[in-house]
Amino acid sequence: VIAVAGLDSVEEALERALASDVSLLSGAASQLVLSGGKRLRPKTVLLAHEAAGGEDRSQAVRFATIVELVHTASLIHDDINDRSGMRRGEETVNARWGDGLALLTGDFVFVRMLSLLAGLDSRVLDLLSNACQCIVEGEALEVLSLGDTAMSEEGYLDIVSRKTASLFAVCAESGGVLAGASEERIGALRSYGLNLGIAFQIRDDTLDLVGQVDDLGKPVASDLAQGKMSLATICALSASSAADEILSSADRLGVVEMLQDSGALSYALQKAEQYADSAKDSLSVLPPSGARAALRGMADFAVARVR
Amino acid sequence: VIAVAGLDSVEEALERALASDVSLLSGAASQLVLSGGKRLRPKTVLLAHEAAGGEDRSQAVRFATIVELVHTASLIHDDINDRSGMRRGEETVNARWGDGLALLTGDFVFVRMLSLLAGLDSRVLDLLSNACQCIVEGEALEVLSLGDTAMSEEGYLDIVSRKTASLFAVCAESGGVLAGASEERIGALRSYGLNLGIAFQIRDDTLDLVGQVDDLGKPVASDLAQGKMSLATICALSASSAADEILSSADRLGVVEMLQDSGALSYALQKAEQYADSAKDSLSVLPPSGARAALRGMADFAVARVR
Repeated sequence: VIAVAGLDSVEEALERALASDVSLLSGAASQLVLSGGKRLRPKTVLLAHEAAGGEDRSQAVRFATIVELVHTASLIHDDINDRSGMRRGEETVNARWGDGLALLTGDFVFVRMLSLLAGLDSRVLDLLSNACQCIVEGEALEVLSLGDTAMSEEGYLDIVSRKTASLFAVCAESGGVLAGASEERIGALRSYGLNLGIAFQIRDDTLDLVGQVDDLGKPVASDLAQGKMSLATICALSASSAADEILSSADRLGVVEMLQDSGALSYALQKAEQYADSAKDSLSVLPPSGARAALRGMADFAVARVR
Repeated sequence: VIAVAGLDSVEEALERALASDVSLLSGAASQLVLSGGKRLRPKTVLLAHEAAGGEDRSQAVRFATIVELVHTASLIHDDINDRSGMRRGEETVNARWGDGLALLTGDFVFVRMLSLLAGLDSRVLDLLSNACQCIVEGEALEVLSLGDTAMSEEGYLDIVSRKTASLFAVCAESGGVLAGASEERIGALRSYGLNLGIAFQIRDDTLDLVGQVDDLGKPVASDLAQGKMSLATICALSASSAADEILSSADRLGVVEMLQDSGALSYALQKAEQYADSAKDSLSVLPPSGARAALRGMADFAVARVR
């Protein structure tokens, strides 16, 4: 676990942001926010800011809080659409309170972000606006492509770039902008975040296929059951005409075996490592620092993690 | 129909805001936005701005666009929670595309509002943030109170104030703020919007009970079927112990007759008129103008409308 300067302030700001006299909303939202998320996006903001030489941390803390609220809101809405019952080892908001209140809890978390926007750097606000649009577009493209066994690797990467990597990219880029870094360094941080996000999501998708329930805190193979494509399944489907039948079966061990034997799983994991390496390479224009080392460590974690 | 200066620019800005290369999102969102909404909230912003002596209309146009996007997003999400199939004479987004894509379409419309926030007056941004929180809280309180036949008039007014009137209040108040009006006039405009919003929602609820499908462009008595309370039903329930049984019956004509005979319907309509009168009275601190007259006209419309 990396200690990140400013993260305590983010935690406090998250708690404050979710206060409401409608106790169901603050309770349901707080439960998820406080249930031990990895805080990768706030960490990316804070570390990028520090690695880019940022001194006054207050704006970075604020933006780190904003992105975690956006991320949390999108998780709550995703869990409704995915009919997920478990997240981080606890019942999802939709499982506990029903879809209607979960929809409103997601909306609540999202709109609370607005209270933190006043005085925010206008370039960062633009970046945030674009990322929020990308997230929703990526989610919509994913819903529209459920069961599309003909999906290409490019189609998959487009969805992943929008739904996941766009926010990571903005986290790192904004850290640089708020630090007053040069355009070269800001561009490098953006590239770091984009590649980190893609690596993170490819790994996430493989964990859904071959991970362990106890590690993940949620059921495995739920993407597969919904017809969500991933790099490994796309690779397997393009390699063998028998893959479709195995993937559609309820035989989870057979699926894992097929993904391993066909080399599809190692292909996906290798790709994730390539993106993580690109992320780390992007950082070479920044001067060496503890924060830069921690960003590199996050890229390693993104592809090594089991949860 | 009142011609409101600046409304054309709002319409153009709405179309621009909903562009996306994910054609489902822009298409689904645009269909609802362009399906002939009354644009009461943008009109309130623009008329309040003009009535308060505002000269440069650009910020008011922008804010008017923002509030219509917020309103549209909340309609899309409400229709999911209410399982509504029709709105403005057309299929709802959820009926046409399913709940999952409707949820994302609502999110899409909401996040597109972010692209209009840069450079917005910080007081107006704070007002918007509070109103968005109120809307979600009001919707949540409503969901939590479905079927609560013991709801008080105060409880109902709290929900209505949050879910509907808070946005109208901010529309009118922001018009004054952006016009650089005195605090007295800004306060008067806020009071106008709050009372207008409450009048509007009470009328809306009575239309659901006794309106005509052809006028409304949506089914009648859908609130009743869901167990949503309204001023008329609260009044009827407090007046007669037999009301509960009639309201729970599928006998629509019996319900209408009971609400009329018990005086509950006229009580609600009279309350709506009182709020509309208060709205109009608030405007007396503003100098006479065409815009002020149009604001008065909107208050009259709010309680006379049949759709």
